[in-house]
Amino acid sequence: MYKLFSVDDHIIEPPGVWADRVPKKFQEAAPHVIEDEGRQFWVYEDQRAPTMGLNAVAGKPREEWQNEPVRYSDMIPGCYDPVERAKDLRSEGIFASVNFPSLPRFAGTLFLEFKDKELAQTCVSAWNDFVIDEWCPAAPELFVPMVILPLWDPKLAAAEIRRCVEKGARAISMVENPAPLGLPSFHTDHWDPIWEACVEADIPICMHIASSGKSTVLTTEEPGIVEIAAAFTRAAHSSVNMMLSPIPRKFPDIKMVWSEGGIGWIPAALERADRQFDRHRYWSRDTDDLLPSDVCRRNMWFCMIEEPIGLKYRSDIGVDKILWESDYPHADTTFPHTQDGAKIVFDGVPDDEVEQITHTNASALFKWEFVAPV
Amino acid sequence: MYKLFSVDDHIIEPPGVWADRVPKKFQEAAPHVIEDEGRQFWVYEDQRAPTMGLNAVAGKPREEWQNEPVRYSDMIPGCYDPVERAKDLRSEGIFASVNFPSLPRFAGTLFLEFKDKELAQTCVSAWNDFVIDEWCPAAPELFVPMVILPLWDPKLAAAEIRRCVEKGARAISMVENPAPLGLPSFHTDHWDPIWEACVEADIPICMHIASSGKSTVLTTEEPGIVEIAAAFTRAAHSSVNMMLSPIPRKFPDIKMVWSEGGIGWIPAALERADRQFDRHRYWSRDTDDLLPSDVCRRNMWFCMIEEPIGLKYRSDIGVDKILWESDYPHADTTFPHTQDGAKIVFDGVPDDEVEQITHTNASALFKWEFVAPV
Repeated sequence: MYKLFSVDDHIIEPPGVWADRVPKKFQEAAPHVIEDEGRQFWVYEDQRAPTMGLNAVAGKPREEWQNEPVRYSDMIPGCYDPVERAKDLRSEGIFASVNFPSLPRFAGTLFLEFKDKELAQTCVSAWNDFVIDEWCPAAPELFVPMVILPLWDPKLAAAEIRRCVEKGARAISMVENPAPLGLPSFHTDHWDPIWEACVEADIPICMHIASSGKSTVLTTEEPGIVEIAAAFTRAAHSSVNMMLSPIPRKFPDIKMVWSEGGIGWIPAALERADRQFDRHRYWSRDTDDLLPSDVCRRNMWFCMIEEPIGLKYRSDIGVDKILWESDYPHADTTFPHTQDGAKIVFDGVPDDEVEQITHTNASALFKWEFVAPV
Repeated sequence: MYKLFSVDDHIIEPPGVWADRVPKKFQEAAPHVIEDEGRQFWVYEDQRAPTMGLNAVAGKPREEWQNEPVRYSDMIPGCYDPVERAKDLRSEGIFASVNFPSLPRFAGTLFLEFKDKELAQTCVSAWNDFVIDEWCPAAPELFVPMVILPLWDPKLAAAEIRRCVEKGARAISMVENPAPLGLPSFHTDHWDPIWEACVEADIPICMHIASSGKSTVLTTEEPGIVEIAAAFTRAAHSSVNMMLSPIPRKFPDIKMVWSEGGIGWIPAALERADRQFDRHRYWSRDTDDLLPSDVCRRNMWFCMIEEPIGLKYRSDIGVDKILWESDYPHADTTFPHTQDGAKIVFDGVPDDEVEQITHTNASALFKWEFVAPV
């Protein structure tokens, strides 16, 4: 059996995440679940979310993937119940799992839109407390706590990182590129307090595809599968952007993970970035002589689900930079056929390299003791 | 010496392209060159272009690449003079060359913005006549005529294709994705007249990176090198979009080239697209069972400049789908070190495969008799 550390899964929030934690004055405005027209809705401030569990398809036949869940009962319990989740993951050979939010979006960008920023900050902390105090303790050796940030204020974000690290957080979720959200880009010092706090705690920064919000497809005519199939271009663009930014040059110990972006495109991206860095160095940059590929090999990690071609190129990527993910309960997940899929994917890869990719790389990066049955 | 067919070069238009061709009533509004404040400017309708030769850096030291030319005399003559261009190319071992426009942009999208569409159509045809009647005859065995289209009207575009094919055109330049320009997407039948005309004439459709206009980087803080280094993500996104569109399924004989997009990312893109196509087929498409990779291998070609990693993966891409380009006179060009570069790039690739990539693939695709000195 492959012993797997999944660095990208998704919590569908149960109804009490905020209701159980925020002070009375925020109960009405913080996200809570109501019943209306025979379905359930998340409501917050003056908004209503269109789905109860975005893309929560685990356990459903593919023919039904177009129907977004409108009630908790439309999802398998492992989506929102950490005890059931732990059973599902262990049955697949997954013994560690890092989770992104759903309602708050991958990097908590929902709260950027909140009018009341005191409420927003309370909601960010409530999600983090839910993860650390309630979700993860349900299977403490399995769930690796990752937290979100109040993205509108990097100093506040740094304080939240330190607060959560104190409580056991082992990673943060960050937007892959803040510019499309209208926030200062990574080519500024705006975000430095966040990087400082992460380097100080030596925790990785996880950047999920599509966490910057914008789609490159701008009409409603394109079928959804185009964005899904081409999603690696977001990880490619945002990681190249980071390789050429001042951040890894200013924070040489920073550790960044591109989640759900795949791996097979990396050698080509590095080849192109290095060639252009060399050609355009005289006018376009005020950085040191570190090549983009040097930055990548020092500061970046990438994730794969099922990529035989990507693994074929593993020596050009760096076997030590490849992590595995399950993406439970989203459409990319291998659940409930993880072990069968892994047999095909890892066919021909030497055992020591399989161990690196399936769990030892992640275990070292997240400083997480990986406990799998012998 | 490597014998090279370049499928992606750029004409810097000399001053007479439109002035020598459009009727008197359009002389003032059609693009023409004026002198002002000690520099030269292209002016058209009520607009003034910011540069005389976007990114025309061939022959300049890299330290000076930031300075856009403000006069013809800021560029080497091969930028705008076809006789000088032919000398430059032949000296590099390049014996066939397909050229994109500069002032009209890669696919002629400048004319989409013209208020007077009769003027716009006249200007499109004038550029095409310039290429076929003036530029290409300066070295008729070397320059492969490619034309642009009146993109605001697909039927008009189809008529222009037929007019130009009659005169010798061997390719069209088309936008990689019309959606970001506010035009109907490739998931409609809007563009069918264009595909029909191209299939009828059996000519390839060349789609240059960035021809869809929009950048994925939305702030002014990012240095230009990010877009240059990450530019392959545009070709990746637009080609995956095309693989999943109705077009190649409706026109199985269509031939499409992604220009300046590189090749090393292709195996990963196909792996991901096929996996997602399989997973999401039940809800997201109404196409046949052709996999995205089947479409790619049947209908698509890709270009490389200097990509040893891309060539290492050539058997996963398909050696018959790889074309070579020079990008003269832009910053990606190998000029004036093409042969030295090619020695490094093609090191270890068998001779017959080098021949395919350097010229026989392109010669067959463009139906162009490739004449190189023996």
